[in-house]
Parts: sequence; structure tokens; C-alpha cells
Amino acid sequence: NMVSNGATLRWEDIASGRVGALLNFNNAQDIARAQAAVRQSHLKIPILFGLDVLHGFRTQFPIPLGEAAAFNPTLSRLASEWAAREASYVGVQWTFAPMADLSRDSRWGRIVEGFGEDPYLGSVLTAARVEGFTKGGLATATKHFAGYGAPQGGRDYDTTYIPPAEMYDTYLPPFRAAVEAGSASFMAAFNALNGVPSTANPWLQTDVLRRQWGFDGFVTSDWAGIHELIGHGVAANGAEAARKAILAGVDMDMMGELYVRYLPEEVRAGRISEGVIDEAARRVLRTKMRLGLFDRPDADPGHVDAIFPSTEARQAARKVARETFVLLQNRNNVLPIVPSARSIAVVGPLADAPQDQFGPHGARGHAGDTVSVLQGIRQRAERSKIQVNYAPACDLFCKSTDQLPAALEAAKASDLTVAVFGEPVDLSGEAASRAHLTLNGKQAEVLEALAATGKPIALIIVGGRPLELGKLADRIPSIMMAWYPGTEGGTALADVLFGDVSPSGKLPLSWPRTVGQLPLYYNRLPTGRPTLENNRFTLKYVDEAITPLYPFGWGLSYTKYSYADPIIAKSRLKPGDTLEVSTMVTNTGSRAGQEAVQLYTRDPIASRSRPLRELKAFDKIALEPGETKRVVLRVPVESLGFHQDDGSYWVEAGTIEVFLGGSSLAEKVGEISIL
Amino acid sequence: NMVSNGATLRWEDIASGRVGALLNFNNAQDIARAQAAVRQSHLKIPILFGLDVLHGFRTQFPIPLGEAAAFNPTLSRLASEWAAREASYVGVQWTFAPMADLSRDSRWGRIVEGFGEDPYLGSVLTAARVEGFTKGGLATATKHFAGYGAPQGGRDYDTTYIPPAEMYDTYLPPFRAAVEAGSASFMAAFNALNGVPSTANPWLQTDVLRRQWGFDGFVTSDWAGIHELIGHGVAANGAEAARKAILAGVDMDMMGELYVRYLPEEVRAGRISEGVIDEAARRVLRTKMRLGLFDRPDADPGHVDAIFPSTEARQAARKVARETFVLLQNRNNVLPIVPSARSIAVVGPLADAPQDQFGPHGARGHAGDTVSVLQGIRQRAERSKIQVNYAPACDLFCKSTDQLPAALEAAKASDLTVAVFGEPVDLSGEAASRAHLTLNGKQAEVLEALAATGKPIALIIVGGRPLELGKLADRIPSIMMAWYPGTEGGTALADVLFGDVSPSGKLPLSWPRTVGQLPLYYNRLPTGRPTLENNRFTLKYVDEAITPLYPFGWGLSYTKYSYADPIIAKSRLKPGDTLEVSTMVTNTGSRAGQEAVQLYTRDPIASRSRPLRELKAFDKIALEPGETKRVVLRVPVESLGFHQDDGSYWVEAGTIEVFLGGSSLAEKVGEISIL
Ligand SMILES: [Mg+2]
Ligand SMILES: [Mg+2]
Ligand SMILES: [Mg+2]
Ligand SMILES: [Mg+2]
Ligand SMILES: [Mg+2]
Repeated sequence: NMVSNGATLRWEDIASGRVGALLNFNNAQDIARAQAAVRQSHLKIPILFGLDVLHGFRTQFPIPLGEAAAFNPTLSRLASEWAAREASYVGVQWTFAPMADLSRDSRWGRIVEGFGEDPYLGSVLTAARVEGFTKGGLATATKHFAGYGAPQGGRDYDTTYIPPAEMYDTYLPPFRAAVEAGSASFMAAFNALNGVPSTANPWLQTDVLRRQWGFDGFVTSDWAGIHELIGHGVAANGAEAARKAILAGVDMDMMGELYVRYLPEEVRAGRISEGVIDEAARRVLRTKMRLGLFDRPDADPGHVDAIFPSTEARQAARKVARETFVLLQNRNNVLPIVPSARSIAVVGPLADAPQDQFGPHGARGHAGDTVSVLQGIRQRAERSKIQVNYAPACDLFCKSTDQLPAALEAAKASDLTVAVFGEPVDLSGEAASRAHLTLNGKQAEVLEALAATGKPIALIIVGGRPLELGKLADRIPSIMMAWYPGTEGGTALADVLFGDVSPSGKLPLSWPRTVGQLPLYYNRLPTGRPTLENNRFTLKYVDEAITPLYPFGWGLSYTKYSYADPIIAKSRLKPGDTLEVSTMVTNTGSRAGQEAVQLYTRDPIASRSRPLRELKAFDKIALEPGETKRVVLRVPVESLGFHQDDGSYWVEAGTIEVFLGGSSLAEKVGEISIL
Repeated sequence: NMVSNGATLRWEDIASGRVGALLNFNNAQDIARAQAAVRQSHLKIPILFGLDVLHGFRTQFPIPLGEAAAFNPTLSRLASEWAAREASYVGVQWTFAPMADLSRDSRWGRIVEGFGEDPYLGSVLTAARVEGFTKGGLATATKHFAGYGAPQGGRDYDTTYIPPAEMYDTYLPPFRAAVEAGSASFMAAFNALNGVPSTANPWLQTDVLRRQWGFDGFVTSDWAGIHELIGHGVAANGAEAARKAILAGVDMDMMGELYVRYLPEEVRAGRISEGVIDEAARRVLRTKMRLGLFDRPDADPGHVDAIFPSTEARQAARKVARETFVLLQNRNNVLPIVPSARSIAVVGPLADAPQDQFGPHGARGHAGDTVSVLQGIRQRAERSKIQVNYAPACDLFCKSTDQLPAALEAAKASDLTVAVFGEPVDLSGEAASRAHLTLNGKQAEVLEALAATGKPIALIIVGGRPLELGKLADRIPSIMMAWYPGTEGGTALADVLFGDVSPSGKLPLSWPRTVGQLPLYYNRLPTGRPTLENNRFTLKYVDEAITPLYPFGWGLSYTKYSYADPIIAKSRLKPGDTLEVSTMVTNTGSRAGQEAVQLYTRDPIASRSRPLRELKAFDKIALEPGETKRVVLRVPVESLGFHQDDGSYWVEAGTIEVFLGGSSLAEKVGEISIL
């Protein structure tokens, strides 16, 4: 039984031992009080304190989708570790994170909490996040198990259809990586998967998670998820909901009170064997044991998160954030801001939006801690004696253009305009599904007007998903995706805008031209009629390009990288072998930078259609101007196969094509044979 | 081996017996010539002549999606029978129809060829179409087996993911209905289904179609579909493609020449047993036998389709068309045109577009045969001495508004404006997938201007899919969907516009507000968080309504119907029983009309989540003003169950809710229990 802090909490339930876990306790005083209460209970089993700690506690790091754009598991580990260090300092023990839900639908608001569209990137980063949280002192509840990221119509809480082989190949790998990285627990998803609600789905919660993957921690429901089985139409009442959930393998009831209320009678009536309850309890207790809860002293009420963000935390947040910015286009090298610039206009409703800059799930983030984009630019500009002319151009939701004239004046009076637009945080996150991906309000109109001034303009997009840019991609030469960059977002962005650091983020998802292209993802299956320009009867739309605006893995730098001399170490490989590909990468530009070198494969002929490309390895390297490095990427032959619906995994003999480069458009560098 | 008429046809192949079927022969002279040629062959096996005859041959009936809106299988039978009668008159023997692909994605251009989003409506109408074609003299190739209607992103030819239980419950029933209605053949779909191309999919072509359903006719590929297995990445070359297709159960190779080229060697090399070839040949020969091809005289070159459209054919086309129009809204009773009207403006690029009025797959339709919308209105207006002021307002694709001023003049000078806009036929049908569902070109702008005249305006939409109306639904009081109404479209539309006949069409799919709502369908699964106005954390979009603009089954009349006294004959039913529900329906208005009475059910608690509503029966009745009829609808208990992934079908004991009314918003009338 897991209960939230707030109006519904009865402290006497804690003292009477009816509460196994508590959520939304976010300070040491409350936690210590609850710990004292549980010691009055008969069994004195320590309570597990959980909280949504996703991308920071007091110090906000970039939101997970942005952090994914860093293509850097070391940074993912660092960000999660910091989040955990701060939260665990005040006694939080458990986070409802990471979110391992792959999504190919940007309409879905929670895409912001994940890693995008790729199962390999998702697996690497989910594992890194589990490791980082764990190292920082938080147990993880990897969520939402499973299929939650593919709701019909992008509608949060809507149902999901994913056939089993596609689950195994695409949606499940990040969860499996979480098991292997030691995730203490999992959270069952809200959605029905192929007609069976995940919270009552024995295939997911028992067959796959326990039997196939050997997970021996526990599974919690999501918020009232067990009660929602009634809404899903698979339980007539609370008792049946509780029975179905525990029999499926859900061990803990978040905010349903159905387990405590109904399971005793279900056992007495013989509808559930006592062994089922024992096993669920054992999993929870085993996890509490492993986490050291029985030995740990109570939270120290003297520990307050006001000691954060510390200098060190801020440095970490800045370090992470500046690798997350994705330079989507940069015609005429509008960025970085040249040293000769004398004045910059900073415009847009998100330039000075310290709370929105956190993105969804700000935990204990304080707007007052934030270095806003505007502040960051101002501080840095001051050092270079550049004047900053700030004009918001419109209100946060850009409903009115009353303030546009002032912004146009600022733009005209400046050498360069930095336009900070995108999504207010209320349009992102849980229950923030969008049917339209266009810039909300009058942003497009405002940006058109700014572009029409003829002044160089760089658009910085703050938001949790790709947005539909339409003609703005032509009108505005330089566009950078900044996601929700967190507490140090302004500092980090200034680092990049002024060229102190080159941008190195890569898109963790395909950026659509329009919402009607969704789902649009690079690792799609082939068609029998691939797109041909002069043949109508091939894969295309009659009214839109078939390609994304920016592909997966895409992101520019201020410098240039050349790839040369790719070598495939061994071209005939047996099961157990490792595909090893190396390439020389040279920084041919005049600035230092980092590059995420990406390796993709394709199995061109197989017993099932296989994706046109699949990311199988990547490495982010730093190069000084003129510097060359040989990058070696390795892929176990065992990861070149695919699943059948029954979960079996086949690695087939035959050719595998290899592509290497700086995005999913990477050049083919050769082939290998699996023997 | 099936070969098309045209550049690639070698007549000597016919004479040498290398051709089993020919397509795109559409006149008796060519057919007779080919029949003479095959008699020179060794075995003299008659060739089967196939053609895309979908909704008419010379006389064009409404496109299938429109015909579905009639909710009237008798009319579907009639339309298909006429198409077949005309085609078979000149020697065509086989049609690549009906299309039984359920689709919930209006982006997909071929949604125009089907019946919309509902498996029951689809089953009833697919069976009626098979029966009609067969009765009229054409063997059917029900297509595309299977899953083709759910391509990713609505992109024709893109891949499809549908889990097995959902295939059985939703996508397969119309195909099964085709088997039961006696479809002579099936066509394998282009798409890969869950990673396995349909053309190489033994589960579809053998397990389901033959073993489970007992079909003993033959399966053909789609155009070069076997060759496309190479593109799908499951065959390295033509030989492997041929082998995989025939082993999966595809008996005939349309335009691939791979079977004739490679199968002999495949058999010699022992990769295919001779029995497989024999069985495929047997299925084709058995079908030719059943169709009487061995006894039938050759086509009579004197038979020319110029004898059509006959008066009788035109009457049938008119009869069908006028039941297909769906009156979506009719504020202020703008329609029907009142007898006191003295002048009507007819505007819009589709008012006088005789070829576009056919819709895709016009077979041998001649534009010269067409009664355009404009002509139909003119003829009828003349009878009532109403003046017609015609102004196209813009070119067919509405790229320029140069002609708008004249249209505004016409509108201002008239009592009422009939605006005929929508989709030129090039934007509909195969390979006409759209990423945008907005009215193409400047149509919205033109319509806004017309509405702004303040004159009463009725918008007639000609097209093959629901289009995004945006603010026009508020601006324009009366909107009617006319689909592509065919040869007699103008006459039929005039019948309805002038109130000679009340509209009675009902939407065979949910009409979205915007493309970003897709897929949007009434028979969806419940969510654990149903939409609640005051709770953000429920099923909704933050930037759009969650509901369609017009729901499935929706359509107004010029009269009103009241439903009363619903009776459920027996409320406790055993397997084998029939749910019988009756209701009194009264025409309470002052005009005669027809109403499609619809019965929906819901299984509220089941072992799997079941749809919120499912259409299970309907009946279209005619009522004079003031007339009342008791309508009885029957549903076998056997059709109240659902499938598991393994294809087994469960009818569970428990409550079933019953809804009855004139659309999918029908009121609940009671419950029954299955014992
Ligand atoms: Mg939650
Ligand atoms: Mg292979
Ligand atoms: Mg590295
Ligand atoms: Mg075709
Ligand atoms: Mg039931």
C-alpha cells in the first residue's frame, strides 16, 4: 500500500502499519515524522519514500529528452546521480524514474520524460539513468511497464496496440536494460496493451519481467492504476481489480487502497492463494532489505534542500545542459555570436521564464535559483561589452501581439536577434497531449515579423517535443533546440550562443515537418515501394514531403568533422564475435567540438522485414581544431538479431550492412557476413 | 501468371499458354482476340480477364466509402451488380474488388475504396458487394489481404502493425464475410503486417484464409507484389520471392513474371515440392471451372459499353447516390432549398467537374455521360423556375482566387449559395496519401469570403475522405458530404438539395476535427481515465477537443425521428440464442425520409478490455410524415464475443449493454445477461 502526502493521508495508517510506501514526501521533516510514526507499528517495517525525481531535485537538469540529445551516457549518469544526491540528502529513497517508454509520437506530452524513438539509445540511457540514480542514493522505479509511449492518437492514457515481436524488438529493450542495470523496482503502465491493461497483464509483469528477464524486485502500480482496471472494463469492482493486479504480478498498490481493503478477504475466500501475497510481500521486503532501509537512520530534519543548488551542482547542470542543445540549422553561420557584435536583441516569451525552463516535473526546483536564458545571455554579453536589448514580444502563451512593436524595434536596433520561443511548460508533460504541433498562439506570426526585419536571427526553441516550424525553417537561418534546459539553462545556452562551447547535441527523434506525418521514425521497416521521385506509386504523401525536417541523430556544430578510412576489423563473424568498426574523425574546422559518432546496421534480407537502419553503437568524442582520432565502435553479433512473437531471438546468417557517420543519414562503410 | 494489357504484354505468351489471367482488358474486341490466342495454346485453358471494377464500369456509381454511407446493403448489392453487368457484358470476368480493408486513418487515400472504420458495417457491405458483383457476372478478388488499411502515418504502402487479436476482431471480419459470401478469390496486400509481408505471410494466406475459414478459391498477388518481397527485405532475388509467395499460399503472380520464370527451377532443385505447384494450379483451375470459363463462349466483339449508361443504369446510379449524401449540419434549415427561392448561386471548383465526380477508379466512365452537380441543379431549378448563377470561384485545385469576385457577386445576387468544394480526384485514391486534411489550395479562404456575404450557404463536399473544416463548421450553416457521387451525382444531389428526397446517409467513419486526432474511431477501447471536463489528468488534448467533429453513424435528415418504447425480447440469453431488440421509430416531421436505425452493444466487464461501443445491427427504414414503425434488430449471442491472439473466440457470460438510436451516440436502452 502506497499513499501520497496530502489531504488523503491518514497518519494513523502509518502508525498501524498499513502503509508500506509513501510518496510526495519531499523534505526531511515530513519524512522523519513518518519514520517515527511507523516505529509505533507492530512490525516496524521501514517505509519506502518515493517521489518523482526525474531530472533534478532542487537543481534542475535538462529534461530527459533533452539529456538524451547529448548522446552521452556519462552525462546521463551524472545528471541522475545529482538528482538522487540532492533528493536522498533530505531522505527521499526512491524515484519514479527513469521513464523507459520509447515513443514515436510527439503529440504525446510525456515524450519529454523519455529518450525518444530509438531502442538502442533508450537502452543505453535508461541503464545510465538507473546507474546514476542508484549511485546517488535513490532506488529506481523504471516506468511505465509497458507500451505507454504509443497511445492511439498520441492521447495520454489511451490504449496501445503493439504486436509482441515489436514489443520485444522496440519497446521492451530499454526496460530490459534497466533490469540489467539493477533497477530496484518497476511501475506498471496506465495503458491497456493490445486489450489487456498493463496493470493486469501477467505476460508483462510476470512472464517477461520475472520469468524471461529474471527480475526479482517489485512492481508498483501507477497512481490509482489498480482502481483504473474498473475503467478499463476488466474488473467489476475494487476486489476484482486488486485480485487481477496482484495475480498479474503487481506487488504494490499506489493510491488505490484496494490491496489493504480487499486482499485479505480474497485470500480468505480462496480466490487468491496466500502464497501470492507472501511472494509480493517478499519482493517488497527483499528490496527494502537490499536498499538497507532496516539499517538506515531516520532522515535528519536538519537536512534542507536549501543548501542546493551548490556551486558543484550548478557546474554539473551547466555541463550537462550545454551538450543537449541541438543546432538544427545555421545558415550564414548566424551562430555563434561574433565577437564584433555590439548589440543583441533577446526576444520571446521563453527568454525570461525561469519556471518554464525547468520543464515538467520540477520536483523542488525554485524559480529563484534559475539562470534564465535572458540572464545567461546578459551575463555573458556583459563580459564582451555587448549590449542586450530585451523585449518579450508577447505573453507566455503568445495570445496577443501587443508587445510585438517593441520587439521589432529591439531587433532593428541590434546586430543579431536571439528569439526564444517554444512551449510553455503547461503544454508539455503528463496529460499534455497535443493534436497540433504548430507553435502555440501567435508565435509564428511574431517570428515571421522578426524575420522580416532582415536582421540575422537565431531561433532558440524551448520545449519538450519537436514543433512544427512550417515556413519558419526557411525564414529563419539559425535554429537551435534547447529543450527545457533547467536551472543553469541560461548559462549553458550563453556558453553555446557565444561560441565558448560548440553545440554537440543530436536529435533523439525524427523532427516531423507536420503532425500528419506521425509516426515518423528513422528505424522504420522498408516498403515494397520505396520513394522514387518520378513514380507516384511509391511511398509518399501527395501534399507533403515524406522525409522529416531534421532526421534522427542530426545536429550541427560550429566546426566540421570529416570521416575517413573506415575499417571493419573482421568481415566474417560467428555468433559470439563482435563487429568492430573504426573510422578516423577529423575536426576540419577552426573550433573545438564534440561529435557523437554513430554506427547503424541493416539486415537487408531476413526471414522478417528488418528496419532500414538501426543504431547499434555510438561514441561521443572531443576534438580540437585539426585533431584526428580513430574511433572504434563495437557491436556484439548477438545484438544483430531480432525477436519472434514468442520472444525467441534469432540471429540469422547472412549479410549485415554497416553505416557510420554523424547522423542517421550516415554513409554505408561496408558489409559483414554472419556465418 | 497474370499480365496486364499494355506495353509489356507479349501476345505470343498467351498463345504459348504462359498466361493464366489478363488484366486491364476492358473491351470485348481485345478480350475476344486474347481468347482466340489462348486457343492456340497446348492446353487451351481459358484465360481469366480481370479489371479494377469498383463502383461502376461505364455507369459510375458513388465510390465505395460513399456507398457505405447509405447504410444499405441492398443498395450495395445493386451498385455492385450494375458494375458487374456492364463489365461482364463486354467480357470482363473478374474484378479486383471489393476492397475489404478497414481503415481508421483518413490520411490514407484508399480509404475511399472501402467502407470506413467499422468491422460490422464492413462485413455486411463487403458481403453485399461480393454478392452483387457475383450476381452481375463478375468473380471477385476481395482485397487487400490483409491489414493494408492501417499503414504507419497513413502512408500508402507503408508497414502495418496490428496484433493478432485485433486482426481477428477488427480487420479480418470483412474478409471472412467475403469468404462466406462466396468470393472466388482474394488479393494479397502490399503491406508487411507485423514485419511479415502479406504476400509472403503463411499465417494470413494459409492458416487464416484456408485452414480457419475453409476458403478453397485462389489468391493472387497485387501488382508486382511478389517482386516487392525483395524491397521488403525478405527475399534476395526473384526466385526466393516466388518461392516465399507460393509457399505462403499466393497462387497467382500479378505482373511479376516470377512464377513462370523461377518456379520450374525451384521445383527441379527440390526447394518447392511439386505438390505445392499442383495445389496452386488446382485452386486457379477449380475457380475457372466454377466460373464456367471452360463452357463460356468468347466475348462478342459486338458488345460495346456505349450502350451504357442505359436509362435503367442511370436510375440505379441515381437511386444509390441519393442515399449516400450525409447531411452533417443544417443550421437554420438552409436545406432543402425552399420553393420560394428565386435564385441560387452555384459556386466552387467541383460543381462542374464531371471526371472528378467519378472519384478514383473510374473504369470506362466517360465524363460526357456525367450529370455534373451544376447540370443537376440547373435541370431541377429550371422546373421550379429558379435562376442559377454559376461561378467556379477558383480553378480545380483552387490555387488562385482570381475568380472569387465573380463568385461573391453571384452569391450576393442569389437567395442561397450552394458551394461545391472538396478534393479533386488526384488527391484521393491509391498513392494519394495526405499529411494534411485541410481543404487544399485556397478553398478555406474562398469559403470564408462566401460565408461573409451573409447569404445562406450550403457547403457540398465532394471528396474521398473527411476533410478538416476548422472554423468553416461555424461559419457555414449547412454542410453535406456528397463523396464522389458518380455519373448521376448531379441529378441525385438535386433530388436532395431541392427536398424531393430527404438525405439519409450516415457517416461510415468518425469525422475528425484535425489530422492530429487520428486515429479517431467510435469503437475504441476504454481508458482507465475517461475524459472529465474538470480533470486535466484524463483523456484529452490540451489544444483540441477529444471528440470528432461528427461521430460515426451520424447524419441528419430534413425530417425528425423519435425513438420510443425499446423492448429487449429476452434479457437472459444462452449461447445459440439471439438478442432481439425492437423500438418504435416515428417520423415526427413533415417530410418523408429514411432512417438507419443502429444497435450498439458493450461488454462492460470482460477478460480483455472491450470497445466502448460496437455496431452489431442496423436497418434502414422509410417513414412517411407521422408514420411509426416498429423496427426489430437481431444479434446472435455468438457475435457478442471476441478473439484471443491464437484466433480462439470467446463469448463470456455476463452483462451486455444495449444502445439504440440514429448514430453512435445512441441512447442506452437496457442490458442483457449472457448465461
Ligand atoms: Mg505518475
Ligand atoms: Mg539477413
Ligand atoms: Mg567518449
Ligand atoms: Mg492494385
Ligand atoms: Mg462481460
